Amino acid sequence: MKFNYPTGSKATTPKMSQAKVSMPPIYGKRGMSLEEELNESNAYYLSHGVAVIHKKPTPIQIVKVDYPKRSAAQIKEAYFSKASTTDYNGVYRGKYIDFDAKETTNSTSFPLSNFHEHQINHMKDCEKVGGICFTIIKFVKLNKIFLLKTKDLFQFWDSKENGGRKSIPLSVFEEQGYQLEYQMNPLIPYLKAVDKIIENL
Amino acid sequence: MKFNYPTGSKATTPKMSQAKVSMPPIYGKRGMSLEEELNESNAYYLSHGVAVIHKKPTPIQIVKVDYPKRSAAQIKEAYFSKASTTDYNGVYRGKYIDFDAKETTNSTSFPLSNFHEHQINHMKDCEKVGGICFTIIKFVKLNKIFLLKTKDLFQFWDSKENGGRKSIPLSVFEEQGYQLEYQMNPLIPYLKAVDKIIENL
Repeated sequence: MKFNYPTGSKATTPKMSQAKVSMPPIYGKRGMSLEEELNESNAYYLSHGVAVIHKKPTPIQIVKVDYPKRSAAQIKEAYFSKASTTDYNGVYRGKYIDFDAKETTNSTSFPLSNFHEHQINHMKDCEKVGGICFTIIKFVKLNKIFLLKTKDLFQFWDSKENGGRKSIPLSVFEEQGYQLEYQMNPLIPYLKAVDKIIENL
Repeated sequence: MKFNYPTGSKATTPKMSQAKVSMPPIYGKRGMSLEEELNESNAYYLSHGVAVIHKKPTPIQIVKVDYPKRSAAQIKEAYFSKASTTDYNGVYRGKYIDFDAKETTNSTSFPLSNFHEHQINHMKDCEKVGGICFTIIKFVKLNKIFLLKTKDLFQFWDSKENGGRKSIPLSVFEEQGYQLEYQMNPLIPYLKAVDKIIENL
C-alpha cells in the first residue's frame, strides 16, 4: 500500500538518481536515528496542538544511590531492564496511540527477533480495549520508512510462533504498509497514516 | 461529590470508630504507598482485560555506563531528571487516560507545590486533543483517596498563578471530587470514577 497525500495526489519516493529537480528531496537529517526523527516529529505535533505523543523513558533498575550533601542524588549502580511495553504512546484525535519504532540494516526483510513477546502482547492487550497500535520500521540502507498495521505484524508473529518464517519481507511493507516520506514539518508525518487506520476502524 | 456504586447504592466511608461490623473495612494494605496500590489495581485491570494503564518509568539522565565482558551493561553514574509529563497513562474504553497520583500528609488541604507547571501543561495539552486527564490524591493521615477532575485542579492552579491560595481545601475534594473506597479487587476502583467523567464528556 502506498501512502498518498490527503488531496489525493500521489506521493512519490525521492530517488537518489533523480535529475533536474528544483528542490532537493528530503532524506531525513544526516546522522539522526529513527528515534531522534520521531522525537522531532512528535515535538512538532505537540507544539502545533495536533497530538501529545512521547517516547517513554528507558526502564532502569536502580541498585545504589548516593545522596551527597548539597547536591543532587547520584545513581551509582543501575541496570537496563527489559521494556515490558512499547516505546511510544500518547493521544491523537481522542484516541490512544501506542507504537514501537525499529530500525534494520537488513534490506530485504525485517527480522522478527527485533520484537519481544511482551511487546506484542502489550499491543494485543491495548487493541482489545480500543487502543490504536502499529509499528514504524526504517530500512536504514534503503532510507525507507513504513508504518505497518498490527494486523500484518501479528499475522507474521503468530506464524513465526508456529514455526513459520522469522522475518517480514520488504514486499509486505510495500504492499500492505504505509510508506512514510520525509517532509519538512513534521519530518516523518506518520499521523497521516494513522488517519487512514482510524478511518478504517 | 460522593462516589457511589453503579447500582445506585450509596458508598459509605469505613470509619475507624465503626462498631459491630461483620466484615472489617478495607484500609488498603499496611505500608503500601499509593503508587503500589495503583500498580496493583492496574495489574488487576490489565489481567481482566479492562484497561491497559502503566506507570511510566522514572526518567533518568545517564552519564556513564560500563560494558563489562560477559555481563550486563552497568550504569555507573546517572541522575534523576524532572518528569516532563504525568506518572500514569494508558487506554480504557478506547480513550486515552492520563493522570498523576500524589500523597499528602496534610489533613486539611492539598498543597499545589506538589505539582510542576509542565505536568499541568501536559494535562492541558492532552485534553485539547481529546485525552481524559485527572489526578488521584491520597490524604495519608485520613486514609482517604479522591479522584479530582482537571477542571477543578486547573481552576485552583490558575488562581494560584494569579496570586490566589496555594492549596486545594479538603472540602473541594469532598464536594467536587470522587472519593475512592478501597475494595478487594481492584484495590482502588478508580475507573468507576473515570466512567462518570466519560459519561459527562
